[in-house]
Amino acid sequence: MTSAAAADPTVGELSEAEVLAAVLAQLGPSAAELGPGDDAAVIAMPDGRVVATTDTLVHGPDFRLAWSSALELGWKSAAVNLADVAAMGARPVALLVALAMPDRTRLSFAVDLARGLRDACDTLAPGCRVEGGDLTASDTLTIAVTALGSLDGRAPVTRAGARPGDVVAIAGDLGRAARGLDVLFERFRDAAGTPVAVDPSLLCDDERAALRAQLRPAPPILLGVAAAAAGAKAMMDVSDGLLLDARRLAAASGVTLALRADTLGDDPDLALRGGEDHALLAVFPAGAALPEGFRVVGDVIAGGADRVLVDGTAPSGRGGWDPYRDWDAARG
Amino acid sequence: MTSAAAADPTVGELSEAEVLAAVLAQLGPSAAELGPGDDAAVIAMPDGRVVATTDTLVHGPDFRLAWSSALELGWKSAAVNLADVAAMGARPVALLVALAMPDRTRLSFAVDLARGLRDACDTLAPGCRVEGGDLTASDTLTIAVTALGSLDGRAPVTRAGARPGDVVAIAGDLGRAARGLDVLFERFRDAAGTPVAVDPSLLCDDERAALRAQLRPAPPILLGVAAAAAGAKAMMDVSDGLLLDARRLAAASGVTLALRADTLGDDPDLALRGGEDHALLAVFPAGAALPEGFRVVGDVIAGGADRVLVDGTAPSGRGGWDPYRDWDAARG
Repeated sequence: MTSAAAADPTVGELSEAEVLAAVLAQLGPSAAELGPGDDAAVIAMPDGRVVATTDTLVHGPDFRLAWSSALELGWKSAAVNLADVAAMGARPVALLVALAMPDRTRLSFAVDLARGLRDACDTLAPGCRVEGGDLTASDTLTIAVTALGSLDGRAPVTRAGARPGDVVAIAGDLGRAARGLDVLFERFRDAAGTPVAVDPSLLCDDERAALRAQLRPAPPILLGVAAAAAGAKAMMDVSDGLLLDARRLAAASGVTLALRADTLGDDPDLALRGGEDHALLAVFPAGAALPEGFRVVGDVIAGGADRVLVDGTAPSGRGGWDPYRDWDAARG
Repeated sequence: MTSAAAADPTVGELSEAEVLAAVLAQLGPSAAELGPGDDAAVIAMPDGRVVATTDTLVHGPDFRLAWSSALELGWKSAAVNLADVAAMGARPVALLVALAMPDRTRLSFAVDLARGLRDACDTLAPGCRVEGGDLTASDTLTIAVTALGSLDGRAPVTRAGARPGDVVAIAGDLGRAARGLDVLFERFRDAAGTPVAVDPSLLCDDERAALRAQLRPAPPILLGVAAAAAGAKAMMDVSDGLLLDARRLAAASGVTLALRADTLGDDPDLALRGGEDHALLAVFPAGAALPEGFRVVGDVIAGGADRVLVDGTAPSGRGGWDPYRDWDAARG
């Protein structure tokens, strides 16, 4: 064993308690009535309801270790779950993290991942903390996060409240995370197609921003509560591409969303079909003052044969992101 | 493709929506304010606090597919999480399930797993439901469950409240699940050590009961609330063996637990060291009327050099279950 390896053992060389202690040291003080260390955490939910969601990142379908650092993986696994809480109009208050790691994983990897989780919470949803979790051995690195949120007395903002005459708005990026994935697949694989480490010096500013949106997304978490307070009637997290997710919201509400291509940026097709942005799609009453950060992208009309129209025409295709289909089977 | 395979496609042959629909059909009606289908669930927490815990079953370290049916895996993944909620003195109200499956997994497997989750809830914690989840592709079958519970106005029962003079009690089996694991390893592997299917006709009643405790455990979930109501001062789920877990409770409380071997059944050593029983270890004030189902196993004394004594002597060894160490690396 080299001295570097001795200073950074694998988790398989340590006891669960030793790995846990190193991870907990990154998480900062608990903000809960009872934080990590007992059979379960106890977390305040002032209005007597809890908003709860879970989402998992799996090595292979969801990320490649040649492209994502442990810090980025921790950050992203928090961010995508915080976005689902925000999309209900709720304030994220706690994460629970089930981390399954191969025995060969370095302790420093687990520590950096924990720091990424905390950094994302501190930056995107101040006050939210990792309040519980689970460590397991697995052949496949898997990060299963559960996020809990508080509605603080407001009604949840579901997908079903949109009505004809409402306006459709977006907060956050569209298409940028997909552009980042394209950069990775096109520029950072070797001749055999295997992912290789990213060299940022090869990228222009725009490409670096796209990569960051893919690897370390910063969805507008605080705008979820702001939208609810401003009267949002329906809302959802755009994780699978605007076209597919807008169809879901429209179907749940029994309406059609009429979008305008000139509001969708330089590349409307990428904005419609690119996944993983975690923007907020929200529907407001006509005339509502939109919170800063939202932009109008269309109107709600009576439900027709097509759930989404762009400039009056139904876009072709399924129009979304599918983890089973849109990653190849390579590992890295 | 045979007609049997056509009638039972793999999840890789289906869309996420198709798998989800089949799984949801097994879960029964939601008991939540907002159940599966939106970005997050909304679940009532009458007293303004939520108890939250997560625990994961991973193919390999935690189960073998030759030994566990999908129904048993669903059941066990629910039961072990319900036990952690019960150990806080809380009433389980909802599960969130992140299920990561290889593409080759049959749809019927996912459906049976969902039915096992529901059956465990209906049997062990009536009123608790799967209210949310996540489906992902993975090379390694992984079931990450989060359980949420309500304290209904009571204080949480932590590990830290035991004091000298209190009595130590247990509800549920000790050592039986470990005995079941021994039966599997000793009787149901081929010459190469690979797990093979269980033939119940080869087993006596006692062995069948042990197998059931390992594969389909039935911890006394409802006794968690009963213990809290009866004044339990400290409590925990015995998942890693009584000796190791009792040491944890004693350390958290700053006391020593003095246990009596004659209360630990026919095989006290197995009762002390065998993991995965998910019995409840609880500490009550002297003279308290214990809820039916609890039996006294010792007393709390002032904290000494040893956190646990059995008949006045400190048992040797670490005395517990470690998933990193106690399963071999074989798959099946």
